[in-house]
Amino acid sequence: MRISKFFISTQKEAPSEAELISHRLMLRAGYIKKLASGLYTWMPLGLRVLRKVETVVREEMNKGGGIEVLMPAIQPAELWQETGRWEVFGPQMLKIRDRHDNEFCFGPTHEEVITDIARREINSYRQLPVNFYQIQTKFRDEVRPRFGVMRAREFVMKDAYSFHADFDSLKQTYEVMYDTYTRIFTRMGLQFRAVAADTGAIGGSNSHEFHVLADSGEDGLAYCPTSDYAANVELAEAIPSSMVRAPTGETMQKIITPGQKSIEEICTFLNVSPQQVLKTIAVLDAENNFILILLRGDHMLNEIKAAKIIGEFRFASDDEIHRYMGCRTGYIGPVNAAVRILADRSAATMSNFVCGANDDGFHYISVNAGRDFNLEESNVHDLRNVVAGDPSPDGKGILELCRGIEVGHIFQLRTNYSEALNATFLDEQGKSQFFEMGCYGIGISRIVAAAIEQNYDEKGITLPAAIAPFQVGILPIGMNKSETVKTATEQLYKNLDAADIEVLLDDRNERPGVMFADLDLIGVPHRVVIGDRGLAQDVPMVEYKGRWDLEAQFIPLKDILSFLRSKTTHITSLP
Amino acid sequence: MRISKFFISTQKEAPSEAELISHRLMLRAGYIKKLASGLYTWMPLGLRVLRKVETVVREEMNKGGGIEVLMPAIQPAELWQETGRWEVFGPQMLKIRDRHDNEFCFGPTHEEVITDIARREINSYRQLPVNFYQIQTKFRDEVRPRFGVMRAREFVMKDAYSFHADFDSLKQTYEVMYDTYTRIFTRMGLQFRAVAADTGAIGGSNSHEFHVLADSGEDGLAYCPTSDYAANVELAEAIPSSMVRAPTGETMQKIITPGQKSIEEICTFLNVSPQQVLKTIAVLDAENNFILILLRGDHMLNEIKAAKIIGEFRFASDDEIHRYMGCRTGYIGPVNAAVRILADRSAATMSNFVCGANDDGFHYISVNAGRDFNLEESNVHDLRNVVAGDPSPDGKGILELCRGIEVGHIFQLRTNYSEALNATFLDEQGKSQFFEMGCYGIGISRIVAAAIEQNYDEKGITLPAAIAPFQVGILPIGMNKSETVKTATEQLYKNLDAADIEVLLDDRNERPGVMFADLDLIGVPHRVVIGDRGLAQDVPMVEYKGRWDLEAQFIPLKDILSFLRSKTTHITSLP
Repeated sequence: MRISKFFISTQKEAPSEAELISHRLMLRAGYIKKLASGLYTWMPLGLRVLRKVETVVREEMNKGGGIEVLMPAIQPAELWQETGRWEVFGPQMLKIRDRHDNEFCFGPTHEEVITDIARREINSYRQLPVNFYQIQTKFRDEVRPRFGVMRAREFVMKDAYSFHADFDSLKQTYEVMYDTYTRIFTRMGLQFRAVAADTGAIGGSNSHEFHVLADSGEDGLAYCPTSDYAANVELAEAIPSSMVRAPTGETMQKIITPGQKSIEEICTFLNVSPQQVLKTIAVLDAENNFILILLRGDHMLNEIKAAKIIGEFRFASDDEIHRYMGCRTGYIGPVNAAVRILADRSAATMSNFVCGANDDGFHYISVNAGRDFNLEESNVHDLRNVVAGDPSPDGKGILELCRGIEVGHIFQLRTNYSEALNATFLDEQGKSQFFEMGCYGIGISRIVAAAIEQNYDEKGITLPAAIAPFQVGILPIGMNKSETVKTATEQLYKNLDAADIEVLLDDRNERPGVMFADLDLIGVPHRVVIGDRGLAQDVPMVEYKGRWDLEAQFIPLKDILSFLRSKTTHITSLP
Repeated sequence: MRISKFFISTQKEAPSEAELISHRLMLRAGYIKKLASGLYTWMPLGLRVLRKVETVVREEMNKGGGIEVLMPAIQPAELWQETGRWEVFGPQMLKIRDRHDNEFCFGPTHEEVITDIARREINSYRQLPVNFYQIQTKFRDEVRPRFGVMRAREFVMKDAYSFHADFDSLKQTYEVMYDTYTRIFTRMGLQFRAVAADTGAIGGSNSHEFHVLADSGEDGLAYCPTSDYAANVELAEAIPSSMVRAPTGETMQKIITPGQKSIEEICTFLNVSPQQVLKTIAVLDAENNFILILLRGDHMLNEIKAAKIIGEFRFASDDEIHRYMGCRTGYIGPVNAAVRILADRSAATMSNFVCGANDDGFHYISVNAGRDFNLEESNVHDLRNVVAGDPSPDGKGILELCRGIEVGHIFQLRTNYSEALNATFLDEQGKSQFFEMGCYGIGISRIVAAAIEQNYDEKGITLPAAIAPFQVGILPIGMNKSETVKTATEQLYKNLDAADIEVLLDDRNERPGVMFADLDLIGVPHRVVIGDRGLAQDVPMVEYKGRWDLEAQFIPLKDILSFLRSKTTHITSLP
């Protein structure tokens, strides 16, 4: 492609509202243009990357036995009312009335539509299993769309839905999809991790998220470098410390701690470590029962884990704390507290610790559960986020933490949707059964942003070759002045094109500085500079530099084609 | 592809509401499934055809210099308000309010969005010309969606928009797009015709429609078989007959014609041909002026041509006719009519004709303009539809008529949108100029239906190979009983797959009748039947039949691969 026949519009600066590096770089490189809040046009460069991601996903889904379909974006309300999600889905769903005042939505997902197709088209176990997928534009009306295409309102998604005669078959396809996703992200050249995920409201079954690893990721992940354990921090189990609880020491003592309310303040004031201080958190459950949750001072409450024990809950207000405990927020503790008490496993192994005295300006020291307050074994649970250094739940090492961007999610839905929509088939015995179902999503457009979060430097985008917009950039120096440069440039361009190597020729007649900066910004893996100086040597030379190389090197002009061919294997090509 | 790993769901009968043959066949072959009125899911088979159409369009657009982008489906109201089309577009536009109560639409077309991009991104004549295109889902809220994907509400379209520094450049790209469209439909193997089209409200400039020819087509087309003239009947000029008006005969006479109101009735009653009878049509213009339009009895009023002369108009009611003419509808005529009279060119060459006498139950015979009523030359216009046998407007032959389905439309927009949106660039002199613009649409999903309207027989779909869902179908007879059949089948399947020939193997273990009927219905160009009888011959044979062949033929098993290879060149392959 010649830039003169293409459309490149790079910018020096990104708008200040773009917080994320991928958002800034995609705007600056002209990958995308904003139309309105959460709505972006994919410009020619960006679309090439999007299409490559799409191509990799499609090819691997086909290999994994997926069968492509295309469902309407606009869906009738009736189906959503059948599953009860019309109301439940909330304002993220873009609801629409047509000219006849019938209700529709712009599909945020397609469980209802595909299950409706299955209940009408699949009658017999002989048609099972089947795994339908589509690559399609979806819409979720985010309250505050941001981060560019990372969290846009309109986005491209691959969603797949599998139907099975029994749970074993579902588990098999789930495994195949797990492997397919692994192949997809590996082939794209991304660093990623599959982690066990929370199954949320649907409950019970297996679910994995696929995360592209990046410091800017919204999700915290825990993994064990010496085993294959990995989980979202929301879900990772903090297993009981093997450490034996230290023996009880001297008698509990009430001390004056004026103005020392936070863990940090009390540690400094008493010169103790947070591990020696009890963190007490007050919450109210759905029936407004007041509950104290005890954690070690250096640990954080995991709200998902807590909700699994006490159901839906909220944090107590200052007023409620005062009403139930008779003191201000910073001074509460379990001693003499006539309320329900839950303790995290690590808190339960503490001895001789510091905690609030339920008296403004006072703490207790040398406190021990059992002796100084009652703590039943049945009230001790895993209630905290894991931290780096915790033992891995599989017993095979020590956990580390990292951050990730969720780009895929696979899910064993079981019979949730087939029951809601009364979707059945006849089994081998002629008996009507609900379909077992799985669903498998990939955020196609989000992957582009996530890949850039992981692959950039101070000059711009450094996407892996598999999804880069072009493979080779040719920068001719003084092409319009030197016939030699022009001839060598045109010849190499023609040869690369004939060899099916995607090449971008900068024939704009711009200053070299502009050409170099643009090519580095937009993220082309291989750069060839053709100039009179190199061509004038005894053996005519051109300059080559890989986007990740520190130094350029000179390659004889006669060898450059085979050199580039060896550098550009295993790429994804577009028509 | 093995059917056991694919998803085929054919039906014996189509729902009775499906009127069009393509709609019936697409439902019966399981190409599409209806979700709601005007909303269809593309099932695996149909999607393969859709993707092939898309692939041909994309490849040819790229060859024609188009640059692909992807704009959001959801568009903010503000842009449409700038061009004034927010109100004008009417109820076909699906309007939407988001959670913040901002107004949007599901884009029915993208002139506003692309012109907004151009005004922000293109500053200089040096960036011109440029031709952006996208392949995208669109929505038009038809009052009465019907004919399946032929006139669906949600549909896939390729829309392109070109920007130019001057009209000459626009005309050049318009030519390129004309040629590109010709290549696209030729490559798909469709019979089509490019016709000059009405430019409608935008007026003035050049426009061509591309029609797939089919008897069921909604549009009437006129073309000259001995030249390249072709036009939509709405637009085709009925040129003045070279026939000299016959001399005026005997004196006009009023005769009694009780109950003879239609042209047909009066012809039978008087034993004359429709060419000897004047058809008088009463209309009212926007200011409610009553006008009589005169046509030859065998001609039809062309409302678009009439509107160009008199502006917006409506047909007079029976009451209005009685009020102005003093008689009932079937008896009006130009003699002694004190109203404005317009005549079609052919009507103006009539002499000694029959017409209504403006008196219930009476007609005049031997009427002549000039002698019996006044007809100014300035009131004679081209006001009728052309008919077969009319001279071609290019003077190179005689017109014929046919019917077509519009699948493409190219248009010189000129500066209509750039002026409305104040979209300018700096020309070579540094002067601000409005972009000249063109737009070029293709109905991707509609092409699938149109192609089937043109390619079917009593057994089912007979799509051209370029867009057929698969190239070769293998039907093994008794595969599960005969090891010989199984071995030959698997070997051929493997060989075809390795040769990149898209093959569908019916491994469902169905009765031969079912397999034959399904394969014919879904439209696979080449069929190979493998059975024990053929394989048992001295030279083992298989049966081959092309979808369009009348008879099957036997081919030696050892030659079938090379035979099929020679039959399946120039196809469009999918990943």
